[in-house]
Amino acid sequence: MDLLNDTLKSIKPVDESWYAVAQKHLDNLTKPPGSLGRLEEFARRLVAITENSNPVIDRKVMFTFAGDHGIVAEGVAAYPKEVTTQMVFNFLRGGAGINVLARHAGAEVVVVDIGVDHDFGGVEGLMSMKVIMGTKNFVKGPAMTREDATACIEKGIDLAKGYAKKGYKMFGTGDMGIGNTTPSSAIVAAITGRPASEVTGKGTGISDEALLRKIAVIEHALKLNSPDSKDAIDVLAKVGGAEIGGIAGLVLGAAANRIPVVIDGFISTAGALIAYALEPSSRDYMFASHNSVEKGHRVMLDAIGLSPILDLGMRLGEGTGAALAMGLIEAGLKIYKEMATFQEAGVSDDIVNE
Amino acid sequence: MDLLNDTLKSIKPVDESWYAVAQKHLDNLTKPPGSLGRLEEFARRLVAITENSNPVIDRKVMFTFAGDHGIVAEGVAAYPKEVTTQMVFNFLRGGAGINVLARHAGAEVVVVDIGVDHDFGGVEGLMSMKVIMGTKNFVKGPAMTREDATACIEKGIDLAKGYAKKGYKMFGTGDMGIGNTTPSSAIVAAITGRPASEVTGKGTGISDEALLRKIAVIEHALKLNSPDSKDAIDVLAKVGGAEIGGIAGLVLGAAANRIPVVIDGFISTAGALIAYALEPSSRDYMFASHNSVEKGHRVMLDAIGLSPILDLGMRLGEGTGAALAMGLIEAGLKIYKEMATFQEAGVSDDIVNE
Repeated sequence: MDLLNDTLKSIKPVDESWYAVAQKHLDNLTKPPGSLGRLEEFARRLVAITENSNPVIDRKVMFTFAGDHGIVAEGVAAYPKEVTTQMVFNFLRGGAGINVLARHAGAEVVVVDIGVDHDFGGVEGLMSMKVIMGTKNFVKGPAMTREDATACIEKGIDLAKGYAKKGYKMFGTGDMGIGNTTPSSAIVAAITGRPASEVTGKGTGISDEALLRKIAVIEHALKLNSPDSKDAIDVLAKVGGAEIGGIAGLVLGAAANRIPVVIDGFISTAGALIAYALEPSSRDYMFASHNSVEKGHRVMLDAIGLSPILDLGMRLGEGTGAALAMGLIEAGLKIYKEMATFQEAGVSDDIVNE
Repeated sequence: MDLLNDTLKSIKPVDESWYAVAQKHLDNLTKPPGSLGRLEEFARRLVAITENSNPVIDRKVMFTFAGDHGIVAEGVAAYPKEVTTQMVFNFLRGGAGINVLARHAGAEVVVVDIGVDHDFGGVEGLMSMKVIMGTKNFVKGPAMTREDATACIEKGIDLAKGYAKKGYKMFGTGDMGIGNTTPSSAIVAAITGRPASEVTGKGTGISDEALLRKIAVIEHALKLNSPDSKDAIDVLAKVGGAEIGGIAGLVLGAAANRIPVVIDGFISTAGALIAYALEPSSRDYMFASHNSVEKGHRVMLDAIGLSPILDLGMRLGEGTGAALAMGLIEAGLKIYKEMATFQEAGVSDDIVNE
């Protein structure tokens, strides 16, 4: 069995005829046609993704993938590496930003150890899918092997499959990994060919000097490892990260199972970009939650062809943007399902000065 | 007693020292400083508005003010005037967009008849505050008397006072009134001095030809009635509408009672602009929910000095944008109140490459 390739083969573009089915109903609701803007788009897309004229999104789950990064040895991150592990415990206790915002959205949080450099033993509540104990420092060679990169993606696919089977109807992506804006910038530079300086930002808040170092590190790593821009798994292995691979897999698994997947910010979109490069039709199942302040995020979104829902100056990751956007996507579905039609409400739908 | 002037006198700018109190706590939460962007701004502002380091926003209410407009006789609206009344009944039955989105936000909806050209009798669920049976056609003279304009504002103030007393902690504004983008455009042109052509759009969807007529109607009305740009009540009386006056009053009443008020789109912002012109400190209590596609909305927001939270291509009114934004503002408050601190979570807050 070849889980990755079987999954890629099973992803189909959404059938666009469902958009017209949904829009016909939307235009019969008591409002001027199109006046709810993107809320109507969300409803149309949910109908097409689920191939159901009356979709039910009753169970939502946010996956926060955690991994460590050897590249932090180069002084590219604002916080020490230990914070990845500390934050995993914070997630498990429910005290992090993603816990708060997922509760607000009515979504569960699943914390996935896919590559943290810490042995968590069997700590309660953690989904253990560890592939590596952190990546290697990719200024000295590949971040991980091709086999490990593939395994990370397949873990994400497995997770998507399992939660689809359990009856979850909407997924969100999130990340935790000190240093992980560096591999994310390296991935977007490698895949799009844009210079590192144009797609590298200050992450959680490094100095101007550290930013120059970060850009130089990425430039050096791309030269040394020369990832093949046409081979997304090669890119992920050479300059990526375990949690980014897990997110890519989750997105592919969502698409294969016709589950809408809400993509968080910069790191999650790097995962989505890997998924898109492996199978462009996976885009049809993605919702871009927000526009991160991290430089390079917009480049990724444009490369995939996604338009972000929110722009609130956020740059935390964890899935926080995705959790907020879930509430808006759900609002679009409620409009579609709960509003009265002109006929039901006895409201005139004659447009007199159109 | 002079309710309007007493209210204006009682509105004070927020005490900005509260922003620092709130930010100190926000910076101690387990996230990089400032990484939740505008969510942090929302929390700071709620602390300052309520002068409470631990604000409680447990009861939210959306006020949808309805009024009719004599100006529809000029062919400036896409729908027939009867739709205002029909939509009021739709609101009362819970089938309109605002009902769906307010339920989603956990807010109640109060539908206020302040100027509909229909006798509703004592229909259950409707808040009757009728001042006029619709405005007069303002290409032929003032839309209403100065006394009626003042009465509309005072109705809004009364409503705010009453709901503040009942213990509601957040207000939203909304409107219903076929033809009401025309007075809203006239108000922004009158107050800011911008030409009608720059602040007039297609409302719920009129033709290019009807748009030209609408602009000409506004230009003519401004010339004929010559509202005093320095006298917002004169502007409201000559080219405004009852629901716009009610919204202005609600905003002033919210500010006087230190209640955060979430402003919907184009028509609500016209009301907020009247409130701001009467007392600029009222701005400190306003949240601009979204950027309407209606041309001229951004001009209003800039004139007040507000930055919209959402930009989803919406143009329905009723309070729909305000209901969506409430959920995001509340998310900011939950971040502030529910996230763990570095100390509680045992997470390192040493920034190593700042």
